[in-house]
Amino acid sequence: MLNKDTKLCISLAARPSNTGTKFHNYLYNKLGLDFIYKAFTTKDIEHAIKGVRALEIRGCSVSMPFKKSCIPFVDTLSETAKAINSVNTIVNDNGHLTAYNTDYLAVKKLVEQNYSNKNMTVIIRGSGGMAKAVIAAFRDNGFTNVIIYARNEEHGMSLAKKYGFKYSNEMPQNPSEVLVNTTPIGMSGGIEENDLAFTEKEIMTANYIFDVVALPSETPLIQAARKHNKPVITGAEVIALQALEQFELYTGVRPNKNLMLEASKFSRS
Amino acid sequence: MLNKDTKLCISLAARPSNTGTKFHNYLYNKLGLDFIYKAFTTKDIEHAIKGVRALEIRGCSVSMPFKKSCIPFVDTLSETAKAINSVNTIVNDNGHLTAYNTDYLAVKKLVEQNYSNKNMTVIIRGSGGMAKAVIAAFRDNGFTNVIIYARNEEHGMSLAKKYGFKYSNEMPQNPSEVLVNTTPIGMSGGIEENDLAFTEKEIMTANYIFDVVALPSETPLIQAARKHNKPVITGAEVIALQALEQFELYTGVRPNKNLMLEASKFSRS
Repeated sequence: MLNKDTKLCISLAARPSNTGTKFHNYLYNKLGLDFIYKAFTTKDIEHAIKGVRALEIRGCSVSMPFKKSCIPFVDTLSETAKAINSVNTIVNDNGHLTAYNTDYLAVKKLVEQNYSNKNMTVIIRGSGGMAKAVIAAFRDNGFTNVIIYARNEEHGMSLAKKYGFKYSNEMPQNPSEVLVNTTPIGMSGGIEENDLAFTEKEIMTANYIFDVVALPSETPLIQAARKHNKPVITGAEVIALQALEQFELYTGVRPNKNLMLEASKFSRS
Repeated sequence: MLNKDTKLCISLAARPSNTGTKFHNYLYNKLGLDFIYKAFTTKDIEHAIKGVRALEIRGCSVSMPFKKSCIPFVDTLSETAKAINSVNTIVNDNGHLTAYNTDYLAVKKLVEQNYSNKNMTVIIRGSGGMAKAVIAAFRDNGFTNVIIYARNEEHGMSLAKKYGFKYSNEMPQNPSEVLVNTTPIGMSGGIEENDLAFTEKEIMTANYIFDVVALPSETPLIQAARKHNKPVITGAEVIALQALEQFELYTGVRPNKNLMLEASKFSRS
């Protein structure tokens, strides 16, 4: 029952979806937490963030196009937000706003847990927002043999320079041990939804496949990797872990894996 | 089910209660409106109001101590807010904030509906926030024979001057046709909770009794008036009508009287 002490968490996006609202409220309900969560949009990011502080809204998830533009209005940037100069989570502690990036945090943890050999050669395809999180995560886990492979030369070279890796505008010919896709290739509804981000031959010669595409999480790339018995990290894992980290930052409670899967399934229903 | 399109209405008060939250959510639920309502507090009224605009929060009820201090941050003051330079309701129409005072509006309507003879002599006891709404309501309904009777000379004289009425620091000796109490006399929990705002003799010689005290709505004054068969307006009627006006401003829907009574009862349970 909603009451004066119920804590509110919100999201800010140009085009809000219901996913976060369903995910968080499902967990609040299951865990008996006196919280509600609702998606919002704004035309004025400055006063939206200042409003979060003034209205004592507990948490604020940030999506496109506000991930950078919100930065001047928070009080502290955590290491996770600093790593890629991008925010997706703001926590309000008695009027003090701390900004995090749980996408980066999730990718960093998954890389750490799945890839113990930091000497492996890594190819990261793409140069968009998720590419940045992935590139920073590999760098911050101590990987050095990383090539950024992107069609967009300007973005690709800039990222390579910033994080100290190599850039290539075509797929490197030498076999690589870890292949990561950060482009929309294989994403449902896109023009390349049936395409492979790497060729079947490249997949066969690699040891590990990582795809950040989450819809569907069984992309053509992930399906091909499974066919060849290559260990995978899927976009669904990234999303689930980033949401878990965000949920814990807001509530102090870390739901178990089954509950997370339930909530995640519900949020996409 | 909470979703991205659910409209949020809030209240701002130094010490939030659950009354408004229960009242509005009860009605949303019964009427099938996709709204939620929650009480908030703030230490920064400027950015709270700017946050209401930026976050596209649909409505904001304003209580002490923000009824005046919110005024610089709204876009339009309605006639009802101008009448007493005090706001209790802000409506957000696509980023344009209009401020109202539904306490004043409710009193004005009740005076209009109950007292057709504008030549009646009226004594209004008290000089606080509700006194102002009542005094302005009588003036704006065309009453001219009004005396403000208040112990606080400074406030009483200032109100009398502002609204063009007489002031007296003691109860006028001539019988008066309408007696209005705007002080806390008779309010539950106060030091004068068992006292009468007017003497039994004064009540007997009057035609109409109006008490703004709502807790309880059957104050000693109202009880004495009923005993002597004097028509009454109670504080509960004022509160119910102001809440109805506010609800309609936020949602565009005017609940019927029975539903209002149900919601009002529930909100105090």
